[in-house]
Formats: sequence, structure tokens, C-alpha cells
Amino acid sequence: MVATDRLNQTSNILHKSMKRASSIAHLTALDHPFKICVIGSGNWGTTIAKVVSENAALNPQLFASEVRMWVFEEQIDGKNLTEIINTDHENVKYLPDIKLPVNLVATPSLLDTVKDADIIIFNIPHQFLAKIVQQLKGHVDSHVRAISCLKGFEVGAKGVQLLSTYVTDELGIECGALSGANIATEVAKENWSETTVAYHIPEDFRGEGYDVDHKVLKALFHRPYFHVSVIEDVAGISVAGALKNVVALGCGFVEGLGWGNNASAAIQRVGLGEIIKFGQMFFPESRVETYYQESAGVADLITTCAGGRNVKVAKLMAESGMSALDAEKKLLNGQSAQGIITCKEVHEWLETCNSVSEFPLFEAVFQIIYNNLPMENIPDMIDELEVFR
Amino acid sequence: MVATDRLNQTSNILHKSMKRASSIAHLTALDHPFKICVIGSGNWGTTIAKVVSENAALNPQLFASEVRMWVFEEQIDGKNLTEIINTDHENVKYLPDIKLPVNLVATPSLLDTVKDADIIIFNIPHQFLAKIVQQLKGHVDSHVRAISCLKGFEVGAKGVQLLSTYVTDELGIECGALSGANIATEVAKENWSETTVAYHIPEDFRGEGYDVDHKVLKALFHRPYFHVSVIEDVAGISVAGALKNVVALGCGFVEGLGWGNNASAAIQRVGLGEIIKFGQMFFPESRVETYYQESAGVADLITTCAGGRNVKVAKLMAESGMSALDAEKKLLNGQSAQGIITCKEVHEWLETCNSVSEFPLFEAVFQIIYNNLPMENIPDMIDELEVFR
Repeated sequence: MVATDRLNQTSNILHKSMKRASSIAHLTALDHPFKICVIGSGNWGTTIAKVVSENAALNPQLFASEVRMWVFEEQIDGKNLTEIINTDHENVKYLPDIKLPVNLVATPSLLDTVKDADIIIFNIPHQFLAKIVQQLKGHVDSHVRAISCLKGFEVGAKGVQLLSTYVTDELGIECGALSGANIATEVAKENWSETTVAYHIPEDFRGEGYDVDHKVLKALFHRPYFHVSVIEDVAGISVAGALKNVVALGCGFVEGLGWGNNASAAIQRVGLGEIIKFGQMFFPESRVETYYQESAGVADLITTCAGGRNVKVAKLMAESGMSALDAEKKLLNGQSAQGIITCKEVHEWLETCNSVSEFPLFEAVFQIIYNNLPMENIPDMIDELEVFR
Repeated sequence: MVATDRLNQTSNILHKSMKRASSIAHLTALDHPFKICVIGSGNWGTTIAKVVSENAALNPQLFASEVRMWVFEEQIDGKNLTEIINTDHENVKYLPDIKLPVNLVATPSLLDTVKDADIIIFNIPHQFLAKIVQQLKGHVDSHVRAISCLKGFEVGAKGVQLLSTYVTDELGIECGALSGANIATEVAKENWSETTVAYHIPEDFRGEGYDVDHKVLKALFHRPYFHVSVIEDVAGISVAGALKNVVALGCGFVEGLGWGNNASAAIQRVGLGEIIKFGQMFFPESRVETYYQESAGVADLITTCAGGRNVKVAKLMAESGMSALDAEKKLLNGQSAQGIITCKEVHEWLETCNSVSEFPLFEAVFQIIYNNLPMENIPDMIDELEVFR
């Protein structure tokens, strides 16, 4: 093949890509443009609100321009945070130095935020979900659709439950999930990344143009710097999103021990295996492919294990001999490393199911944090893993 | 479960692991102990020679104690490198500061090295394989077994061929492969890591105790710091081992552009997808599971993309605008970044098969290196990837 053919080939590829992008631009809402709101205004919440507000502004035939974002009101230098966001178009507290779209409107009232919304995006810390959902009860029509950007499980009398299932059970609305290799500040700066949106079309789907489907979700979240894949497997991306933090703790331990890149990669390999096994065992509707093909699977695992809170806390534990609690206090300024809670929830659930020994990495992480098991035992514990054989 | 139960559970897991290790120690060669040799004495060659020499010394009923390692003779301060290795038990040139076992014997003659060997381990740079194999022709009995630790393909009239297949075709001996998340110096320092050995039992297998099987290979390579999984899928681990370097170049580009961790994880996700697709298309005997479950698959990809030559060269290209050749010269002191050769071989092969457009990441890497395609085009090219859908 000569050089001109090669260039033609490349140009063909680019052309197809542009064609596809423009096909999204022709989607139209047939009843009224979908009204979007975001619940949550931390750094990830604000970043996702920025993404969808940009798309809402660009697609007036599909989305209402105004996107409301619920902000837990705080005072910053004597001014309301909502007022600062709506005047300066910057979330100075949680996403400083990032310009926000003017059609993104910070709203201090939860009920005002969701009023008339067609799509609610949940993006708050896991521990606030229950309280917020209780406040929303009775104020959300059953035809509203939701996307959860939260990580974690709801562990209770029903066993391990997906957060999206919790939303559906409590509010009676269909809820999907968004998850991916998405460090918030990198997405906010519009560095290129990918994500996965999972949504199951409900039985009461009102038809194309009248209801949310995969095309609408792609149009809502896809940006030139934020490439979206929309799939059905809500369970798969949620399981991966919750459990990656436990694996990241394992990576932090071996890094802190000075064992290097090979060891960290080994932990990620075993971790991916246990994530898949957990999914297959407790959420049989999840697809194995999701874990190794999607951004929410292997890519998010890689990003999370490359750094982030859980790795840092575990590394400090290994280097200093500190407890998890002390390491969290020293590093996170009141925030928490989600894996520390998740590994306990997972351990308790596996104990109930008599399946602890089938997840030796998850168990090793739990035992190290809660029972002072020496970290050096990880390789021997993992070696028992027969996930695949 | 109370704390004592938990400790019992942990102790059970450790106990089972020890029991399994001791079952390996009871393997016995029934005719004569297997004689091992290693061809190659670079840093990975010497490291693997160290590993197998340790096991040979520990298992006299299974392996002959003396392990010969072929060394391309060089003079270091007026002394032969083989002499230094055999006197000081250190490869001062390629693996300094690592003590080698006394039963590892450096041998300057290729034919002396393989004399009476039952197992030959190839661990030389890819470009020397053909020459060495030609020298060995007629000097290796057909019952000898081989393991290749090389990365790459042999691209010729037969299309893309595995290096293990090349060895089998040329020498008429069964050849498996070893590959994993194994940065040589970390393994040499006995930091914990994992690896994958793949070997297909040949039709002329002479029976347990008389011939090489999976148990013998586990006993040969497994160390407390080097955990081995033995599988059948030679093609799968070889494809992954060859193509990871192309993916690593992609990671280097996005890192050099300053796009961060999300982007690098996205490249790895897409890369894993193209590796799987390439395997399925050209080596249908390879198993999808190998790519995401084994150390030689996803874990090696992660380690390689976390650093290493290919990432460094690509990063410098992105940061400085240098050509691949200049970046290699500046960084690698005469050595080469394997991905630069592999992406060209892969491109040419895919062109022959009219399949270039199905591997947009591999193609993007090729076009960037050989035809100055702007790196910023990677996301758009990748977005065309429909590997899985």
C-alpha cells in the first residue's frame, strides 16, 4: 500500500467517526426536550454536571438547556456556594479553576432540583444516598429515569445490593449507572478519557423520542474528550466499580513493601479475577466481557490502582506500620478510602455465604486492615486462588 | 465468626499452600534427572537461569544440579565474562549485584551448552534467534523439549508465526513459552511476582517421570518469589507478549501529551481488546481467557505500560517531537524498543490480510511512528474500534 492509500484509509476512519457524531446531533425529543438534573456537587458531581450541561446546550432539540445541580449549601467567605457557582461559573470549593457552562444552575433545594426532571443523575458520596432518596420519595414521577455515578454496594437485609437497584426499589424509577477510568480532575480539564454507561430499557419504555434510550444517553454524556460506550450490563459495571477499591488497597500494600511493578500487576490480575468471580456468583446477570472489555472494568481498575486514595492509604500503612484509621486521618483530611469500608462489607457478606476462602485477595486485604495479618502473607494467600481453574 | 476462627481460616489457607509446594518436591525423574540449559545471558536470560538453577539444586531427584547457560563471550577488564560468572557467580555486565547459584555454569560454546540437555530455555533477543537455531540444527535430539522466553513474532512467507512454532519447525522439538509481568531486575531481586508457562504435551510424550509435563515445568520455574501458572495456551501468551509493546507505545504517546492516567488506562483497555481480536483472528487456538486471566496477559500489559523502554521512547517522541529513531538513540544506548519493530510487522501483515481498519490502535501507533500521523488523532481513530460489538 502506498502512502496516499494510507492517508486515504486514515481519512476514511476519521470521516466515519465524524459521521457518527453528527448522527447523534440529529436526535430529537418528540414530546419535549429532556430535562436533566444532577444531584451532587463534589469534584466528580460537578465534573459530570459540566459534561451534561455542555451537551444540553449543544442539543436544544433533545435536551432542555438549563441543567440544575443540587448543591449542599455552604458559606465560602460569607457567600453562598450556589451563588458563587451561578455568578462566577466556578465551583471554587470542589472543582477550582474549571469554568462551568452558564446553563448549569446550582440549586440549594433538593426538591427544586428534581422538579420536572426527566433524567436524574446521582453523584454524591455513597453514605448520603439513603438520606437523599428518602427526601425524594413521593416527589419523583415513575417515568423519570436515573443514572447513578456512585461506587459501592448497599449491604443490608437483602444481602449485597447494587446502588442502582436501591434507587429503583426506593423511588420506583429505572436506574442505570455510569462508571469508568475517570479521575475527575482529568475529565474536568478535558483530557481525553473513556467511560461506560449502563442502562436497561424498562418495560414501561414509552418509545424512541419519548423516553430515554441508549442513543439519548450517548448524546447526554459523550464529549470529544469523554468517549462513552453504552451497554446493558448495569450489574457488571457496578460490581467492578465497587470492588476495584479493595484491589487498590492490595496494590498499595505491595508498593509500600517495595515489591515493585510486577507485584502490583499481579495484585491487579488476581483482583480482576476475584471481581469477575464475585460478579458471576452474586450477580449472574452480569457479563464476563464487561469486566475485561469496558472502561468501567479493566481500565478503571488500572487507573485506580495507579494511584488514588486507597493506594496511598495502604502504602502508608505498609511503610509506617500505621493502622488504616491513622493512615486515613493523616492523608485524607476527613475523607475516607472507600475500599476500607467495602472490604469489610464484602467480607461479612462472603462469611454469610460461606465463600470467604474463594476470594483470598479480598480476604487478605480485610485481614490486614482489621486483624493485623502480616502483609507479607498476601502471595501465599493468593496462591490458593483457583478462580479460573 | 470470631477472631480465632478467622485465624484458623487463614492458617488453613497457608497450610494448603505449603502442602501443595511439598507435593512438587516429591516429583522424581524415573530415567535420569532432567538436564537443563539456558541459551542467553542478558538480564532476563541470567535471571531465568538463576531461577531454574535454584530449583535444580533443590530437586536432585528431578533435575541434574548443573545448569549450563550460554554466554556470548565478551571481555570485561581483560577477563572473559564466562570466567567472571563462574568464579564470582555474578553477571557483572548484564545483571550486576545479584548473586548467582554456584550450580549455574556459564559456557561460551553453544553446542557444549545444549549437549545432553533435556530442556532448552531460549532467552535471547528476538533478532538473534534465527542464527542460533541454524547453529543448533542437527545437534538437538527430537526428544529434547524447549521453552521460549522471547517476545515477538517471526514474520515471513508463512505469515505471522509464533517464535515457539519457528523453533519447532526448524529444530523438530516441542517448544512452549514463558511470559508474565516480569521486569527482570525485580525478579532477580526476588521481589514477588507471577508468570505463566504454556506448554502443549506432544504426541511423542514418553510418560510421566520420563518426559517434561506441566508438573515438571512448575517444579522448574516456580519459586517462593516467582509464582508460576502452567497452561496449554502457547499461542495466547505469545500473542499477548508480542503485542503489549505496541500498546505501550500508545501509552507513552498519551502520557507524553500530558493526558494523564485516564488516557493511559483507555489505551490499555483498547489494546487488550485488539490483542484479543488479533489472537482470535490469526491464532484461533488461543483462548480469550488467557488474555485477561493470566500473568502473561493483562498483568504483563499493565507492567509494560507502567514504564519500560517502549513507554519511554514514545513519551520522549510526544514531548520533544523527535522521531522514533532519534528517541531510541537518545534513551536506549543502542538497544531497541521492540514495539517499534512489532507495530511495523503487524501493520504489514494486517495489510496483507486487508484487516488494517479492524485494529485502529495498532494502526494509529504505526502511522504515528512511520508516517507522522499527529498523536492527537488517537482518540478519533480508536473510537472506530468495534472489537467487541
